[in-house]
Amino acid sequence: MSENKKTIIVFSGDLDKAMASFIIANGAAAMGNEVSMFFTFWGLNILRKPEKIRTRKSFMEAMFGWMMPRGAGKLGLSKMNFGGIGAIMMKSIMKQKKVNTIQELIESARALGVKMIACTMSMDVMGFKEEELIDGLEFAGVATYLGEADEANVNLFI
Amino acid sequence: MSENKKTIIVFSGDLDKAMASFIIANGAAAMGNEVSMFFTFWGLNILRKPEKIRTRKSFMEAMFGWMMPRGAGKLGLSKMNFGGIGAIMMKSIMKQKKVNTIQELIESARALGVKMIACTMSMDVMGFKEEELIDGLEFAGVATYLGEADEANVNLFI
Amino acid sequence: MSENKKTIIVFSGDLDKAMASFIIANGAAAMGNEVSMFFTFWGLNILRKPEKIRTRKSFMEAMFGWMMPRGAGKLGLSKMNFGGIGAIMMKSIMKQKKVNTIQELIESARALGVKMIACTMSMDVMGFKEEELIDGLEFAGVATYLGEADEANVNLFI
Repeated sequence: MSENKKTIIVFSGDLDKAMASFIIANGAAAMGNEVSMFFTFWGLNILRKPEKIRTRKSFMEAMFGWMMPRGAGKLGLSKMNFGGIGAIMMKSIMKQKKVNTIQELIESARALGVKMIACTMSMDVMGFKEEELIDGLEFAGVATYLGEADEANVNLFI
Repeated sequence: MSENKKTIIVFSGDLDKAMASFIIANGAAAMGNEVSMFFTFWGLNILRKPEKIRTRKSFMEAMFGWMMPRGAGKLGLSKMNFGGIGAIMMKSIMKQKKVNTIQELIESARALGVKMIACTMSMDVMGFKEEELIDGLEFAGVATYLGEADEANVNLFI
Repeated sequence: MSENKKTIIVFSGDLDKAMASFIIANGAAAMGNEVSMFFTFWGLNILRKPEKIRTRKSFMEAMFGWMMPRGAGKLGLSKMNFGGIGAIMMKSIMKQKKVNTIQELIESARALGVKMIACTMSMDVMGFKEEELIDGLEFAGVATYLGEADEANVNLFI
């Protein structure tokens, strides 16, 4: 176990929880920690490319892909989203307060060397292909997560 | 503290989060970890027997019992549940992909020796009696959880 | 790292999750642990004073303040809230069962020396001023959290 390793499972695909995940991850990385984020289930939506990528999908996969937010720019709030109005209000207030956007937080995470890992089992269930997700990701399963968590001293599930 | 002990508090009674909990727990157990899952609040619904068990309940307890999902087979999704349609879609897609069902995951957890502990305080609040929950559980409170978490190197709240 | 330090990030402002947070925190403190709770995002609502405090706010801040629950007494449930009916039912059943109220849990946390820290970045985004929150809090950011988490052996995100 190492005093300077942290892991975060990002299960949620809500804007507020995604931001919390990256704020903690980037803070830890800036303080010299090795940080691994595991994106699973709804959390994969954060990593989707905003544009439509042509892939071969089953009907169910296509439907899932169509119903879920396409990337960090489309996420809703976990509470008081009101069909997206809440998220728009929150983004406008954050812009006023000069808080980094979720896209900027993802860029910073990359620049700080935060390891972003997409859960392959969830990708399979959701029908997401590697080319539909943003660049610079690693792809792995629960065993990889557990191996990393064993070496970390802070492990969160968000 | 031990490198090979993990605890998970399963607070959520959503199908997706229940599956994530068991996938992590079973993965850890398969890799040689001692794993304790503490089911509290909505998480107790995962452990309910599917059949109605005759017990003496107050009006409020009976109402709670009636309103909440009776067992792992009845859980909804935390997002996009649409009155149960989302959960049915998810289960159908998981079946296609040959992902274990939640019931199979619970069976595996048992076979792998994962300790499943029902929170007695939550049981009291929800009005659940021991005989309404599946077999093979332990019953304990927050002190037991904290004792186990002290010995573990990964502790998650789901 | 210390065997007797715990941290909890309280991101949620739901009654059920707030209660779980304080039950764990108070249990740990009663068992001799040093406990730090970091209230961020919706979790700040738990700390609001119930009365309206006169402060200078932008239109958006005022609107946020008006839409969100004013203090621990106004929180809803994360599930089955039904516009507040669920929370009222839950509180009535908990009173019958002689479970401590959230307000009593907060008082106990204070008496047990649990450190309650309000996230300053979230306060800024939500437009909450120090005088709108209950007494006895500390104010800090993610770096403080990470410093404390590094010294703790149990770190939860709720």
